[in-house]
Amino acid sequence: MSWRDLMCGELRGEHVGTRKTLAGWAARRRDHGGLVFVDLRDRTGITQLVINPERAPEAAELAKEIRNEFVLQATGEVVARAADAVNPNLPTGAVEVQVESLRIVSRSTPLPFQLDEDNVDETLRLRYRWLDLRRDKLQRNIRLRAQMVGIIRRHMEAAGFLDIQTPILFKPTPEGARDFVVPSRLHKGRFFALPQSPQILKQLSMIAGFDRYYQIAICFRDEDLRADRVQEITQLDMEMSFPDRDVLFALMEETFAAVWRECVGVDIPRPFPRMTFAEADRRFGSDKPDTRFALEIEDATAATRGSAFGVFAGAEAVRFLRVPRALSRSEIAALQDRAQELGAKGLAYLVRDGDSGEVRSPIAKFLSQAELDAFALAPGETLLFAAGAWALTSRVLGALRVHLGRELGLVDEDAFTFLWVTDFPMFEWDEDEQRFSAVHHPFTRPTDEFVDTFHERPGEALAYAYDLIVNGNELGGGSFRIHEPDIQSRVFDLLALSEEEQRAKFGFLLDALAMGAPPHGGIALGIDRMTMVLAGEPNLRDVIAFPKNQAGLDPMSGAPSAVTQAQLDELGIRLVAPPGG
Amino acid sequence: MSWRDLMCGELRGEHVGTRKTLAGWAARRRDHGGLVFVDLRDRTGITQLVINPERAPEAAELAKEIRNEFVLQATGEVVARAADAVNPNLPTGAVEVQVESLRIVSRSTPLPFQLDEDNVDETLRLRYRWLDLRRDKLQRNIRLRAQMVGIIRRHMEAAGFLDIQTPILFKPTPEGARDFVVPSRLHKGRFFALPQSPQILKQLSMIAGFDRYYQIAICFRDEDLRADRVQEITQLDMEMSFPDRDVLFALMEETFAAVWRECVGVDIPRPFPRMTFAEADRRFGSDKPDTRFALEIEDATAATRGSAFGVFAGAEAVRFLRVPRALSRSEIAALQDRAQELGAKGLAYLVRDGDSGEVRSPIAKFLSQAELDAFALAPGETLLFAAGAWALTSRVLGALRVHLGRELGLVDEDAFTFLWVTDFPMFEWDEDEQRFSAVHHPFTRPTDEFVDTFHERPGEALAYAYDLIVNGNELGGGSFRIHEPDIQSRVFDLLALSEEEQRAKFGFLLDALAMGAPPHGGIALGIDRMTMVLAGEPNLRDVIAFPKNQAGLDPMSGAPSAVTQAQLDELGIRLVAPPGG
Repeated sequence: MSWRDLMCGELRGEHVGTRKTLAGWAARRRDHGGLVFVDLRDRTGITQLVINPERAPEAAELAKEIRNEFVLQATGEVVARAADAVNPNLPTGAVEVQVESLRIVSRSTPLPFQLDEDNVDETLRLRYRWLDLRRDKLQRNIRLRAQMVGIIRRHMEAAGFLDIQTPILFKPTPEGARDFVVPSRLHKGRFFALPQSPQILKQLSMIAGFDRYYQIAICFRDEDLRADRVQEITQLDMEMSFPDRDVLFALMEETFAAVWRECVGVDIPRPFPRMTFAEADRRFGSDKPDTRFALEIEDATAATRGSAFGVFAGAEAVRFLRVPRALSRSEIAALQDRAQELGAKGLAYLVRDGDSGEVRSPIAKFLSQAELDAFALAPGETLLFAAGAWALTSRVLGALRVHLGRELGLVDEDAFTFLWVTDFPMFEWDEDEQRFSAVHHPFTRPTDEFVDTFHERPGEALAYAYDLIVNGNELGGGSFRIHEPDIQSRVFDLLALSEEEQRAKFGFLLDALAMGAPPHGGIALGIDRMTMVLAGEPNLRDVIAFPKNQAGLDPMSGAPSAVTQAQLDELGIRLVAPPGG
Repeated sequence: MSWRDLMCGELRGEHVGTRKTLAGWAARRRDHGGLVFVDLRDRTGITQLVINPERAPEAAELAKEIRNEFVLQATGEVVARAADAVNPNLPTGAVEVQVESLRIVSRSTPLPFQLDEDNVDETLRLRYRWLDLRRDKLQRNIRLRAQMVGIIRRHMEAAGFLDIQTPILFKPTPEGARDFVVPSRLHKGRFFALPQSPQILKQLSMIAGFDRYYQIAICFRDEDLRADRVQEITQLDMEMSFPDRDVLFALMEETFAAVWRECVGVDIPRPFPRMTFAEADRRFGSDKPDTRFALEIEDATAATRGSAFGVFAGAEAVRFLRVPRALSRSEIAALQDRAQELGAKGLAYLVRDGDSGEVRSPIAKFLSQAELDAFALAPGETLLFAAGAWALTSRVLGALRVHLGRELGLVDEDAFTFLWVTDFPMFEWDEDEQRFSAVHHPFTRPTDEFVDTFHERPGEALAYAYDLIVNGNELGGGSFRIHEPDIQSRVFDLLALSEEEQRAKFGFLLDALAMGAPPHGGIALGIDRMTMVLAGEPNLRDVIAFPKNQAGLDPMSGAPSAVTQAQLDELGIRLVAPPGG
């Protein structure tokens, strides 16, 4: 039995005069001039059904029962709409179906919210996710995601990357977040960990000779939740042996260009620009600069050496943003508050009025003419200064830059500016732990320059690592890996892992590296975030079909939920406290 | 920097006279006539390197250090091999590389086993999986699997199925096996369950209006292990709204035909034959008949009513296999043992000698001429009888049939006979629980004939369910689902779920069914098993890149492993007993 001849969004003028059966949801019903009109919806669109009590009395009787979201099957003749009834906004808007027979396939209880209702409470939306997902926006997001993933797979496979599945039940991995763990029933007292990434397994796949690996991999991080985090994330994970960075970058660029072209009809210029971490930090105060607008950070450290303004005089760095507007006092006050939240002591400024050319600033009086000349402050500009440690000036001005870009409308909201950031530091000093930690991860290769010396000057060493940025969002990153067991051990030593810990945690990797490991490198990019950028969707949960809420709960199924005492007994575990609310 | 100009398996006559750089593993090194020969291997194949100490003294010196599985990079001229040195079994066998420069990229410690060694202990293979995976067979299996999955995805997407990801951290699902559970740190005392299948979520995707869903889904079952089971399985999971069984079957058939054609060059005739469960049971004594050979079960119940042989006289069923050979006494004795293991009291038989035509049987004397005539025993045949309850005769003769098919060489080992088995019973009586249980799962739709009455005669009701079989292996199955909340509740009632249990376990599904659920149905097919059949690989673990061993342990990483007390404290759980060995 066939339920329908074609989809609701497929009806066109060419079908006029034919008899068709459609099935879908009643999106809207209205009575007008003795007729009943029903918008019948499926994932492809909407067709208007017309039920005329004179022609189809049984259908008209049944139509009285129709409420929103009932599932209907209708058969009738496709007719052209009257000229004044044509809806040019709808692909099917030139035709309608004169219903001859109608069947209510499924009914619906009253809805907890209407599909066209805005600002529905998110918990309610998640509780009734099957209903929420019927909205146009969510249908589009989930479809875009699937389409994007399909394009990515096609490109990976065309380039010889093998889709290799790695286990979900594995061993704790070293990504730094907390692991979700799974108690083993067959081996009581022991636990599997859900992978934070397939990092080691993809490296082993290279050592195993598969040459090119990819996976749309599900990863798990038991982090405390923030608005833009979920605990179950998906990434495009890939790795290549005998790697070539230009080949890897070009492949990613072709793939993203294809995604944007096919999914949203946007041409992304290639190759993507590249910038070292040092340059990104210097120009944008960020390791993920939003290059949709300029507003670059300028450096006044040299110009202000020995300034009469004490804050500038001896600061490690004096840097400023040149804002193309004479900001008001209240605007500046708000920015000063923001700067303080970011850790700055204050936010010095110079404003030059656009009309009078007058300079307004509490610090102007301390500055020499040479300093003022060096700033080259034009009428209608504001300079915002940060002074202090370099990292602090980057943090403050980088954040203010992004804020101002948005506030002042400098950002081209239709643009997609992709950017590679490269040559990250290999290590950073961890004040709490009083040791170095890996910026990327401990398997990241130092650049050739630092291969022999990174352990002597860890703070200076650069890594063969790269991130892919779009519009100031980090899509992900990767690196070339260490394939020599002795270099890997040297990194572990530097990270203060004892030999025993190295064996316990990474013994199998070290063994594998010692059995003919090829050079290899790869990348991992977040599918959730890519979909958000592609769809222009600010809500992470709206690019995931069945997400948890911000508290990590699923209001629909009630997960996580209690388990029985028998289950706990089987697993050999016991709850410390009784289950909470 | 580029490590190589082309892959080791790509060198051909056309390259003769060019200078090429290759990289790969030393698969074999031998010294002959003052020259050193190295087979350089990567995933595409092997190229022979020739190192001549007179032409390349440095390379020759370095070549002395080469051991198996060292990673090498070599540059040299591609030359044609001497006519008597051409290897016609190797695609690259007409050429070799005269090495000019050589680099040892990575060395290898002595290997725990050689790649060409047979019968290596499986634990050792799994312990050094990265090495084991370099073998031709495993390379081929994992590549076949990836290729197969790629073809499946292509077909699903071309047919409009959306790849929708469903969560791994979810709620206990009702598939009947034990759930793996994950303690929640943010909500102590509560647990996520890893899905045994995305069954409910794919139904919700249909209720959400996505119309066609698919996923290569990872599923988890905490079962006790058998040789052919793993706890982490992968399935092609799909679902369609307003379903049409012919469309679904045709899509699967096209997909499988494409997989077999593209992966192994075999043409699978379509459409696949279909057979009801009742017919499969009657003819083959099995719900997954191996139809590569006949040896069908014949029914002698009517012919033996009131037989003088008491075992036959009043049995619910008397059925037999007609074996096309006069079996010896010892062969029959072995079959009798096997029948008893299967629960039969005995195994009556009639053998007719091929030459003398003499009938040999302890029961012949009890049988009437009419009975003997009805059996139509030809010279050179053996009849093997089972008598008793119908289900017992099916079990015994179905298993003996498969055994004899193999033993007597009746099976065409090169054939792939796909088969749909349909119309399964909806429920079976569970003696232990003293209630009915669902044969497929509780969301399976009764056939139209039983929609209104299944609860009155549950033992007779048939389900709108189907399995896909190949060569006697069940690849998986599916069904049309119940989309009416009242019918779903009636099934739950019959399965003895109280209203409270129904709400607690399936409340969200019942709510969703009540909000405009379209008719829907789908299927789930095991990727692991499909790969085994496709690759002709009997070992389940050899179609999985990183499997656990038969005890559910990973000898490579040591998973599952102990966790720290701090982790347990954070999770609010405690071990009942200290971790075992």
